[in-house]
Amino acid sequence: MFEITCKSKKSKARTGKLHTAHGVIDTPAFMPVGTQGSVKAVTPLQVKEIGAQIILCNTYHLYLRPGLAVIKKAGGLHKFIHWKRPILTDSGGYQVFSLNDLRDIDEAGVTFKSHLDGSAHVFTPESVVHIQRQLGSDIMMVLDECAPFPCDLEYARRSNAMTVRWAERCKLAVENQGPLYGHSQALFGIVQGSVYPEIRTQSAQALVRIGFDGYAIGGLAVGEPAEVMYHIIDVCQTVLPTDKPRYLMGVGTPANLIEAVSRGVDMFDCVLPTRNGRNANLFTRTGTINLRNAKYKADFTPPDGECGCYTCRTFTRAYLKHLLQVKEILGLQLATIHNLWFYLWLMREARNAILAHGFSAWKTETLQRLDSEKEDKETMSTSL
Amino acid sequence: MFEITCKSKKSKARTGKLHTAHGVIDTPAFMPVGTQGSVKAVTPLQVKEIGAQIILCNTYHLYLRPGLAVIKKAGGLHKFIHWKRPILTDSGGYQVFSLNDLRDIDEAGVTFKSHLDGSAHVFTPESVVHIQRQLGSDIMMVLDECAPFPCDLEYARRSNAMTVRWAERCKLAVENQGPLYGHSQALFGIVQGSVYPEIRTQSAQALVRIGFDGYAIGGLAVGEPAEVMYHIIDVCQTVLPTDKPRYLMGVGTPANLIEAVSRGVDMFDCVLPTRNGRNANLFTRTGTINLRNAKYKADFTPPDGECGCYTCRTFTRAYLKHLLQVKEILGLQLATIHNLWFYLWLMREARNAILAHGFSAWKTETLQRLDSEKEDKETMSTSL
Repeated sequence: MFEITCKSKKSKARTGKLHTAHGVIDTPAFMPVGTQGSVKAVTPLQVKEIGAQIILCNTYHLYLRPGLAVIKKAGGLHKFIHWKRPILTDSGGYQVFSLNDLRDIDEAGVTFKSHLDGSAHVFTPESVVHIQRQLGSDIMMVLDECAPFPCDLEYARRSNAMTVRWAERCKLAVENQGPLYGHSQALFGIVQGSVYPEIRTQSAQALVRIGFDGYAIGGLAVGEPAEVMYHIIDVCQTVLPTDKPRYLMGVGTPANLIEAVSRGVDMFDCVLPTRNGRNANLFTRTGTINLRNAKYKADFTPPDGECGCYTCRTFTRAYLKHLLQVKEILGLQLATIHNLWFYLWLMREARNAILAHGFSAWKTETLQRLDSEKEDKETMSTSL
Repeated sequence: MFEITCKSKKSKARTGKLHTAHGVIDTPAFMPVGTQGSVKAVTPLQVKEIGAQIILCNTYHLYLRPGLAVIKKAGGLHKFIHWKRPILTDSGGYQVFSLNDLRDIDEAGVTFKSHLDGSAHVFTPESVVHIQRQLGSDIMMVLDECAPFPCDLEYARRSNAMTVRWAERCKLAVENQGPLYGHSQALFGIVQGSVYPEIRTQSAQALVRIGFDGYAIGGLAVGEPAEVMYHIIDVCQTVLPTDKPRYLMGVGTPANLIEAVSRGVDMFDCVLPTRNGRNANLFTRTGTINLRNAKYKADFTPPDGECGCYTCRTFTRAYLKHLLQVKEILGLQLATIHNLWFYLWLMREARNAILAHGFSAWKTETLQRLDSEKEDKETMSTSL
């Protein structure tokens, strides 16, 4: 199911092909986020043209709206949203735990109130598998608790122990509940353990013993320094089997992705390109620009002169700035198209560099270029 | 500049080709509205794929933001917004007169305060020509007063007399101010006179004496009954020269367009397809459907089974309903694509019917079909 096609010599970076029922994903891969069954502000055709081979959808949101009955009647999520390539669904746990006052957790699972109408629901390890079976995603995720940051060692230990027991129940549930739509669905475990290397190690070891089709590293990019995140990735990757895909959940900036790839991560998802785009922040090969900045008012150059996306081939910074300023929907679309293209381009470049055995040099050079345009940094950080 | 290619025998309907500096427009034509330099929720590429040969932009909005300095520096509006086909700009008058408390009108022109920041501005017949020269639109409109509805005979008479004097000043201004970007720009006069046939007649006669490249019928669809509007169109068309294009401003429903075409109108613009689409109202060949209606929750048929647009070829009513319900931008895009396609399809069908000398039969049949789906009517009318 996962074949490694090339390994970097000077780092842990590798390229691979992840085979799913809806197609092959070249790794390292970035997955655009399609929370409610749509990558925000772009059509499925545009997502395809941008080059995405897989998208992520959020179980929690789809479970509430339109609800499983509609999606099941449509023949699964792929058919409902008209996306024929692979889909990964999360377990819904992350969203539920973000509800804070509206949820109650115990060994059985988590009881929560809908953020929409206050109605009560329960997610258990078994039910999130059942839900993802009805969604028909190519990759399902186990139910886990994403511990808050900061959290003390004891909390992290107890939380992770339960997450491991839940993972085991998910594995059993998958074995007991066959697929609904005739195609196979992979199940990934999720390593937790906050910023504590020893718990992360135990977590990874326990998950490997249970055995999953792939392994995610969860609970990072929740407020800890980047160096801590990189260290935890290092810790996890020494335990996780090299022949299975590794997925760093919810991360991150272009620099974060490059650093994680060099540490052996194969898959990413993040709302940064889509959300920041809608907030007038555009990623470029020399850093991020914020189009709210007055200096772009009469800047008739493309957002990124080296970029091949529809936005950069066609439009200017001045026009995009105008659209975003007057709140035209087109501004959101064009910014999203560019930012997603940028992230997918970055992963393509990383793969090419690995295949050409030049990853380390590429990494150094790319990180330097990404850091070369300092002027818009301040605006950028305030919007994150 | 305008050639009539076919005339209907049983009605005043005709097909034509309007030649402009940026291309030919087949008439009868519908112009999607791109108020602030963007047809809301769709890319210029999508507008082109939908088949639009011309769009309308609003002078008032573009004058305020991004302002003429930026557009001039970009090389004109076509280049600024990256739309290579023809553009018609209004004079800005309609928006200014809608400001009510913020404007003051006299023979010289109209003084108004920006709805954005309260800053004071003046539009005169000469200045709106100057502004449209800087925009570089293919068709410019004269400054007119769109009289309120209802308005008494005396108000309509005085208002129209001034509108005619303003039209004459616009014509002079065009002769005194050459184009800025090397391409020719047409100027259309606007017939006013509220619902009073004798004033409409005088208005049209006076404008024809001045001589314009085309004639618009303004001040309709402002609250008067449809039958009154059709009668006023009949009155105007008997006076207006048959060899010039006639443009019915701001109208209307599919039925309005068909009735106006049969009365000799060649051009239309209206926010109905775009605005109603964003409000979950979709036009179909058998009437309008409102996707907020619960019955579409699990309706896996396309919005309009006979439609060839991207939306209908790809997606279901259930998915569109979901997108609009959860406020995904994609819902606005897909509804807009369909509704614009529908309007352009309707004009294409009308042209084909005229060319095949079957317009009257087509009109009867199409009006009947458009009226055949009664169930969603109530929802529709409340949103207009």
